[in-house]
Amino acid sequence: MSPDRRTALAAQADVHRSPLRARRLGIHTHDQAVVFMRTDCHVCRLEGLTPHSRVLLSADDRETIATLYQVSNGLVGVDEAGLSEAAWAHLGLSDGDPLFARHPDPVLSLSRVRRRIYGTRLDEADLRSIMSDVVKGLYSDVHLSAFITAGAAVPLDREETVALTRAMVEVGERLTWSNGPVLDKHSVGGLPGNRTTPIVVSIIAANGLTMPKTSSRAITSPAGTADTMETLAPVDLDLPAIRRVVERECGCIVWGGAVRLSPADDVLIRIERALDIDSEGQLVASVLSKKIAAGSTSLILDVPVGPTAKVRSPEAAQVLSHTLSSVAGIFGLRTTIVLSDGSQPVGRGIGPALEARDVLAVLRQAPDAPPDLQQRACKLAGALLELGGKALQGQGETLALETLKTGRAWDKFQRICEAQGGMRTPPEAGQRHPLPAPAKGRVSSIDNRKIARLAKLAGAPEAKAAGVEMHVRLGDIVAAGQPVCTLHAETSGELDYALDYAAATNDIVSIEPQ
Amino acid sequence: MSPDRRTALAAQADVHRSPLRARRLGIHTHDQAVVFMRTDCHVCRLEGLTPHSRVLLSADDRETIATLYQVSNGLVGVDEAGLSEAAWAHLGLSDGDPLFARHPDPVLSLSRVRRRIYGTRLDEADLRSIMSDVVKGLYSDVHLSAFITAGAAVPLDREETVALTRAMVEVGERLTWSNGPVLDKHSVGGLPGNRTTPIVVSIIAANGLTMPKTSSRAITSPAGTADTMETLAPVDLDLPAIRRVVERECGCIVWGGAVRLSPADDVLIRIERALDIDSEGQLVASVLSKKIAAGSTSLILDVPVGPTAKVRSPEAAQVLSHTLSSVAGIFGLRTTIVLSDGSQPVGRGIGPALEARDVLAVLRQAPDAPPDLQQRACKLAGALLELGGKALQGQGETLALETLKTGRAWDKFQRICEAQGGMRTPPEAGQRHPLPAPAKGRVSSIDNRKIARLAKLAGAPEAKAAGVEMHVRLGDIVAAGQPVCTLHAETSGELDYALDYAAATNDIVSIEPQ
Repeated sequence: MSPDRRTALAAQADVHRSPLRARRLGIHTHDQAVVFMRTDCHVCRLEGLTPHSRVLLSADDRETIATLYQVSNGLVGVDEAGLSEAAWAHLGLSDGDPLFARHPDPVLSLSRVRRRIYGTRLDEADLRSIMSDVVKGLYSDVHLSAFITAGAAVPLDREETVALTRAMVEVGERLTWSNGPVLDKHSVGGLPGNRTTPIVVSIIAANGLTMPKTSSRAITSPAGTADTMETLAPVDLDLPAIRRVVERECGCIVWGGAVRLSPADDVLIRIERALDIDSEGQLVASVLSKKIAAGSTSLILDVPVGPTAKVRSPEAAQVLSHTLSSVAGIFGLRTTIVLSDGSQPVGRGIGPALEARDVLAVLRQAPDAPPDLQQRACKLAGALLELGGKALQGQGETLALETLKTGRAWDKFQRICEAQGGMRTPPEAGQRHPLPAPAKGRVSSIDNRKIARLAKLAGAPEAKAAGVEMHVRLGDIVAAGQPVCTLHAETSGELDYALDYAAATNDIVSIEPQ
Repeated sequence: MSPDRRTALAAQADVHRSPLRARRLGIHTHDQAVVFMRTDCHVCRLEGLTPHSRVLLSADDRETIATLYQVSNGLVGVDEAGLSEAAWAHLGLSDGDPLFARHPDPVLSLSRVRRRIYGTRLDEADLRSIMSDVVKGLYSDVHLSAFITAGAAVPLDREETVALTRAMVEVGERLTWSNGPVLDKHSVGGLPGNRTTPIVVSIIAANGLTMPKTSSRAITSPAGTADTMETLAPVDLDLPAIRRVVERECGCIVWGGAVRLSPADDVLIRIERALDIDSEGQLVASVLSKKIAAGSTSLILDVPVGPTAKVRSPEAAQVLSHTLSSVAGIFGLRTTIVLSDGSQPVGRGIGPALEARDVLAVLRQAPDAPPDLQQRACKLAGALLELGGKALQGQGETLALETLKTGRAWDKFQRICEAQGGMRTPPEAGQRHPLPAPAKGRVSSIDNRKIARLAKLAGAPEAKAAGVEMHVRLGDIVAAGQPVCTLHAETSGELDYALDYAAATNDIVSIEPQ
């Protein structure tokens, strides 16, 4: 249309550009932004919106793209837009706030994803624009999956891996620390009960090294480090609070989700999990971007190796380690890999409070502290003490153990908890039920995944006290009827769910006749 | 667990396996199955279900996998499962029906998708199991996108293309016809107003050849052939009804969505559209699987070529044509490609009833019948008459035109409409508004996509009478103020929406000064 026609009709434009009223529907979608509008609302009519289309929502200065579901009944009013919790939080709304909705502009970075699908390598500018749009929520699951798949079908090369790592760091917040080495650790693959982090941080910080640790909550496991730590102290700290704690105590153990360090990783990891693919380049960028954004300079990578663990052979671990170290080096991050046994759960407890009890037992040097958890923590802390220059090569583990035995780690842990907002006592479960061995024999295998499922059915991680307490380890000899583990639950209903599963499932703990 | 333990605890199992009550929520999600359950309902607790996880729903003998959204408020009761329309229809439910929900078993065919991502070619068994799970609704958007992307990043080879075509046919219904050639046509790329199908079918059937045509409804366009035809006769026929009509009249024009001919295509095409990628192998399998399932033996492929059309050059059209013909040959399907001009809309009307009026004008040989629509229909019908052996090479178009001019096509069309359930008169719009040319000059371009959008804003395809009526074609000389098109709408509100868009948009129809 020419300028003339535009002027002639301009008075009509904007007549229908009135907002909808935002309404919180209390719908939990994980991280998916969903908006519910009436099929016959003026916005759907004006914009020609159809179900399952992508819609740009804007309120004040915030905007996001949501998936539109249209409703034909009274779920929302004709002048309302109902929102999922993820969309609600992203837009920072209050009930009744005006909300505008329209067709989104084309997401330009998608053309770069398409080019990559058709074989053109991506450079830094490409990856920055893609990651920027990813964290703005402009990519649907279809788009995210295409990006992940393209980078697995034709693997990211080294330049792309470096550029992706950098882009993931750049689209989020960054922490910087003024002095000394900044230490970090990462565990690949969730081994139930592998809760070394609070112990490692306490040992490192007690030795005067800086370790600002951010951890995740459970997504598919019965407990993340943040869930466990939350039974001992507040973990929901913002960046200034993290800085205060670390400046005072050298270390912290907080929830990473409250700060936006490599937020693209949080989006991509859900897709990788759904596809169950873990291509090397993306794994490397995922791990490193979080650590670089946290300002780390030295990293220990804990890689449990075992038949039901993520990494199944020492050779696979070495290949991963090589790529990871070389990319990390470009960002000035020194990396050491520590292989560990991934064949059975660590410690006794599986579930937030039960794992916290194991952590406390090790820190307090209680007589019944699980030796495997202590040994793992000391191995990792020892390697970090060496990286941080507090111990000579080969002597870190001894220093770590000494830091535990003298009570300095326990003292430091209590100080960190106080600095994070005050130490707490982990809750105890009201409902307990032992699972007896059906016959005498030797414990020949323990299925990590089934044990994790049992703990989740008992209520973990939402029910903090719930989970599984292991009484046996591989190779133990048991008598018939002797408990192999005890279920902990907060309600009898949840206890029953876990018992149902145990009754219906083979080989959670296998006993071989002798 | 050993058999002993299973027996000991077996009595407890099933205690909590009570169903939820199904509730229809009237939520339109296009084809996505979504279930809404309370976070605190016994199923979510028992199964340890989390938001956005995939859930197997079963009712009587039907089952599907849905995406779970959890609700924390009163949207559904604690014993209810609220369902999207797609899930509701798939399960064939009534309100209050018992519905079971649990973790789905692993979708085994996904391991074949993963293998393909990592470079292993797929064979027929692989593709059959993948397509089978796709049509069962077991794949999420993430999985579907990975399948499409993997086949674009490392293109399907010829064997895979053939195997995919066969698999897509095999997982749906098939039509078989006892005698003679069975003709079909397909148009690549939506050119507004390109509604040749009812005319072509009438000409072919009038000459005694079999043409059982199934067509789609609009997804993103202002009208599909099924939408247009529905203003003239019922189109929602099942397979026995289609067979009856075709046996009596040689041809039909029905909606393909009511019959399951290559249902996998309906699922995959939505993902390809979202990604805006159209890899050759998948396009070929998509087009051919529908035709093979319909029992066709000869196919005309109409390929509009133009700057705003899907295929942008004659060379690209020839490459596509070659692959398509060679794969089609394996299934005994003869294929001819017909290139056509894709630079502007076809006929005058854009929108279901407006296009139906053009179709009727050509069939009735009205003095104002759009000559371009007639010419396109005769070209395609002519090629089919030659393929079907009713005309010598080069004489098909003449026979087609003669079939129109003698009224035999019009007669046949009316019979087909009667056989499909009775002929109807297309509705007329109550609201009309011409858009005047701002200045005198020559029509230099018409934007197919913007014209389509204008028609949709006016209400098409839901409002059958709505759309755009074109008054000019490329090269026409217009005076200032002369209408270039007229908007048709069923309500004044919708008319305003379209006028708003026209006022705010440049170059819908471009006029060059002379």
